[in-house]
Amino acid sequence: MSDSTEKLTDLSALGEFGLIDELTKGIVILHASTKMGVGDDAAVIQPETGKVMLVSKDLLIEGIHFDMVYMPLKHLGYKAAVVNISDIVAMNGAPKQLLVGLGVSSKYSAEAIKEIYDGIKKACEVYRVDLIGGDTTSSPAGLFLSLTIIGEADPEKVVYRKGASPNDLLCVSGDLGAAYMGLLLLEREKTVFLADPNMQPDLSDKEYLLERQLKPEARINVLKLLEEAGVKPSSMIDISDGLASEAMHLCKASGTGCAIYEDKIPIDQLTFDTAKEFNIVPSVAALNGGDDYELLFTIRQTDFEKVKLMEGISIIGYMTDDSEGERLITNDNQSIPLRAQGWDALKSRDLFPDK
Amino acid sequence: MSDSTEKLTDLSALGEFGLIDELTKGIVILHASTKMGVGDDAAVIQPETGKVMLVSKDLLIEGIHFDMVYMPLKHLGYKAAVVNISDIVAMNGAPKQLLVGLGVSSKYSAEAIKEIYDGIKKACEVYRVDLIGGDTTSSPAGLFLSLTIIGEADPEKVVYRKGASPNDLLCVSGDLGAAYMGLLLLEREKTVFLADPNMQPDLSDKEYLLERQLKPEARINVLKLLEEAGVKPSSMIDISDGLASEAMHLCKASGTGCAIYEDKIPIDQLTFDTAKEFNIVPSVAALNGGDDYELLFTIRQTDFEKVKLMEGISIIGYMTDDSEGERLITNDNQSIPLRAQGWDALKSRDLFPDK
Repeated sequence: MSDSTEKLTDLSALGEFGLIDELTKGIVILHASTKMGVGDDAAVIQPETGKVMLVSKDLLIEGIHFDMVYMPLKHLGYKAAVVNISDIVAMNGAPKQLLVGLGVSSKYSAEAIKEIYDGIKKACEVYRVDLIGGDTTSSPAGLFLSLTIIGEADPEKVVYRKGASPNDLLCVSGDLGAAYMGLLLLEREKTVFLADPNMQPDLSDKEYLLERQLKPEARINVLKLLEEAGVKPSSMIDISDGLASEAMHLCKASGTGCAIYEDKIPIDQLTFDTAKEFNIVPSVAALNGGDDYELLFTIRQTDFEKVKLMEGISIIGYMTDDSEGERLITNDNQSIPLRAQGWDALKSRDLFPDK
Repeated sequence: MSDSTEKLTDLSALGEFGLIDELTKGIVILHASTKMGVGDDAAVIQPETGKVMLVSKDLLIEGIHFDMVYMPLKHLGYKAAVVNISDIVAMNGAPKQLLVGLGVSSKYSAEAIKEIYDGIKKACEVYRVDLIGGDTTSSPAGLFLSLTIIGEADPEKVVYRKGASPNDLLCVSGDLGAAYMGLLLLEREKTVFLADPNMQPDLSDKEYLLERQLKPEARINVLKLLEEAGVKPSSMIDISDGLASEAMHLCKASGTGCAIYEDKIPIDQLTFDTAKEFNIVPSVAALNGGDDYELLFTIRQTDFEKVKLMEGISIIGYMTDDSEGERLITNDNQSIPLRAQGWDALKSRDLFPDK
């Protein structure tokens, strides 16, 4: 976290206003629509005429969504922002403004909170988002982040979960399961570390998995690809909670079933190898692991030619009639219900995962 | 909380989706601007052309902002919503949409969470606000609420903290200090209860104070009064944190000083008597107690005639040149710095109070 010889600042010594001044120093407003950011009872946004606003909120809680033993504070801030930004991307919108709610116990120094904010600000810079306000308060135990993201979109371009029809093709960006394998690696190293603090893990060959878990990105680039190709998805959701869960959300909202081909699920070689190392079926990590923040979306069959060679997009199945339910077509060509893949077993770390 | 003979539902038994279905059941959308509420990655709002959107976030944390021993869950939900709504009112805006972030430990039953939501929904009904989304997640310990409120206003009607000028009159709505005395009463009864659980408190003559603490209201009616009289405040803030703190916010944002007359501070007789009972100077409860959610605002001297006889509005002082600082003119006509009134002593229950 910080050099232990460095003197850390007690939160109570700095005081609320001192801390807020420190955290909000140097914030540059990027969007003309942000009329008033930090510093009043509410932020003021002047939406562009004709646009709709998209609003979403995600919580990240210590001990549930992250573990301070291996989550660097700056990454925590970055990830909290990205998780929220990803929800706007999943609506086919552009993220614009962010509010940060932060609860911290007195064990955290002002420097630690500044680290978290630095991560949030970094994400704001990368995704061109204005940090416009929030609330910082003490918590009796632990740390939590409650962010609210605001985005903008043309009304006719918004993509809902509910727009899929039977025979639409089910597509996913990037690759899946890596963040989950990164989590398992970190959990394993934590156990080793707690048993013998002198053990130094060598994870240099697993960097991709760790980065996917600790510093995920939102898939704005995928929206650009689709827009340039003239494809508007019929439905879309981001994968925060595992492919299976998100596919079921699309089905429920659209009143359809779906069929997903296990062998079409994009899995990186390192994810595959590491899953094997952990005795986990790689597709189970992809289906139920979560934290990928890739986009899961459906397209009309007429858009197939435009999408099939798109870099980083995999067509993994299709939507079916509601009566057919949500099915996984396994590598050995069996059709099984999507839920049957160790769903609950993997969920124990999070009673109510983020949507 | 609930009849102990009643069978309570375990959160894990109901599951995330079951709980969300239960909580969001029967939500009626009131505003045409709410295009999509609960049920997608983000809510969709179509702002009225030409209006600005106001956004604010407030956290309420168990053990910091409320105590489960005396805070009924429904009131907690109601208060969390009102605290947020009050921030929109303080900008001279109309509250429109609300997002609810809720972190709960497994000790809470589904029925308990439903009680909190019932309180939030009641406030939404009273203040005509659409509940449009949020996030519910487990917490390792305790309960917290993180709400985000969205409001709407004509751009030229928004009132900021920064608009006050020297010689503007400083006004406050309602009366102050009652919520703080309510808190002290509840804390006292808690101590008595913990010492002897058979002691039944008789607080029937203190109802006003308890209601101010447990079920505050946002002062939308004051905005109406001012609008009807054709008065636009030059600056405004809501009193969540004590008159002294809020007056200082107005001064800092506006680059002014202020003079507040102790004998002009509106204090209800019951607040006065109860403060005396607790050996507290009544004006100190008003200056530093907080949780009043009254409006503190400044008007031009030219509006004096319109405001002076307005029911429920007190003129308590005036803004001065910055160089004169923030002053309290005491009952015995001494001018003392505003901060000197036991500021820190009263703040111990909350390291970082809400703004």
